[in-house]
Amino acid sequence: MDHIQLFNNIVQKRSFLCVGLDTEIEKIPAFLKKEKDPVFEFNKRIINATYKFTVAYKPNIAFYESGGSNGWVSLESTVRYIKKKHPDIFVIADAKRGDIGNTSRMYAQTFFKNMPFDAVTVAPYMGEDSVTPFLSYDDKWVVLLAITSNKGADDFQYHNEDGIKLFERVLSVSKKWGTTDNMMYVVGATRSEMINDIRKIVPDHFLLIPGIGAQGGSLEEVAKYGLNSKCGLLVNSSRGIIFADSSEKFDRVAGEKAREIQLEMEKYLSERNLV
Amino acid sequence: MDHIQLFNNIVQKRSFLCVGLDTEIEKIPAFLKKEKDPVFEFNKRIINATYKFTVAYKPNIAFYESGGSNGWVSLESTVRYIKKKHPDIFVIADAKRGDIGNTSRMYAQTFFKNMPFDAVTVAPYMGEDSVTPFLSYDDKWVVLLAITSNKGADDFQYHNEDGIKLFERVLSVSKKWGTTDNMMYVVGATRSEMINDIRKIVPDHFLLIPGIGAQGGSLEEVAKYGLNSKCGLLVNSSRGIIFADSSEKFDRVAGEKAREIQLEMEKYLSERNLV
Repeated sequence: MDHIQLFNNIVQKRSFLCVGLDTEIEKIPAFLKKEKDPVFEFNKRIINATYKFTVAYKPNIAFYESGGSNGWVSLESTVRYIKKKHPDIFVIADAKRGDIGNTSRMYAQTFFKNMPFDAVTVAPYMGEDSVTPFLSYDDKWVVLLAITSNKGADDFQYHNEDGIKLFERVLSVSKKWGTTDNMMYVVGATRSEMINDIRKIVPDHFLLIPGIGAQGGSLEEVAKYGLNSKCGLLVNSSRGIIFADSSEKFDRVAGEKAREIQLEMEKYLSERNLV
Repeated sequence: MDHIQLFNNIVQKRSFLCVGLDTEIEKIPAFLKKEKDPVFEFNKRIINATYKFTVAYKPNIAFYESGGSNGWVSLESTVRYIKKKHPDIFVIADAKRGDIGNTSRMYAQTFFKNMPFDAVTVAPYMGEDSVTPFLSYDDKWVVLLAITSNKGADDFQYHNEDGIKLFERVLSVSKKWGTTDNMMYVVGATRSEMINDIRKIVPDHFLLIPGIGAQGGSLEEVAKYGLNSKCGLLVNSSRGIIFADSSEKFDRVAGEKAREIQLEMEKYLSERNLV
């Protein structure tokens, strides 16, 4: 999928929502616990209830890995289910990987060859050769960390050399490693005013905004500063959708929450004449 | 395990060798491929041949993850085998993880609660709250990336604010998050002369040196600049030991390679009167 296809999907669905599948086994409604694979069963129902309102899903790999080999099976089943039923939906492995070349090659194989993910989140600390192995797959993407939405973002991401903050250097250096068709950036939405500055460095790249909902962050502000002529935004919501309700109608409530966000997104897309 | 226990194990074995279990299925000797779990079978024989000469093992998680749920089973079997047969050997999950707090908590659970690893390698980009969840387990360690041994290390790790390079800031800020009993640092050995500068910031912490052997780097230089009064070094070798031979006697050759390194380490420990 290139960025034009991604934009076309956004226009068609009038949405730039990404639903985060941070599926914690303890938070799954009790009645699903008797299923053979409760995590996959939960995800399947969430997907069926939300796919009309979303252009992307983002399983958080930690939540599957913590289930050991069973968790890994739930992850594989989930990504295969999405890509089989909805091949146009963009699926991101939120894995924050990154290692020396031969090791990043193995991580890329895991998510791009063994599983049909479209993208992997990657941490930038180890530089170019830790990232490029992920870019050697056609139609696959790296989502590189620029600014994260947590408190610890302040510790290193703003380290400032001659007026250039580390996250700005990450953007300006890394954008040469790929293209707008295979790289996007994580930009923590708790700092939405900074999206303005980021757009000066990467005007055309897609940005993945993680911080809407439980992590706090205003969709209106993100849209104001972040939208470009090809939308250029994926905005994630996880717990605010998937764990909005814990009863037997959890999936219907999740669908309603996704629909609410989609409607708000449609408004911002429309104001910019993108739909 | 605290750093004194780790030092005692080093003195007893006269070695600060860590054997990297970067077990690539394609490189396993052909005669093992008929086993039910060839990766575990390979690891078991490597462990049996090398444990006398090593104080630590470091499975590289990418190589197991790329095998999907089967790979995850091989990893679990390997770490359980080591800790059952050799509880004193320090086992590091080389995973380069790190995410917002609730996600890092899940990664910590994976490696410290579900599996008996002693330590996990963590990337520093997301700061304190991405690291501290790993430090909340008694007797478990974080091995934080400071300088890596790859070419891309130059891209960001040397970003310089008022004379303080990023990796130096990582060291000076992060050492306040834990103690010498639960934090150590990855320091790429291709830059062994820099270990001198690093010792000024973290004189008492253990350093994990990844770059001996295939990644090139001199053990003598590392020992010269890195040894402290409690040794303070774990030096890793992966491919140079485990894939030194691909015949039926691969494990015996691996043992000989580990023994060679151990003898060289004994010399440096002895020169400092540490053994």
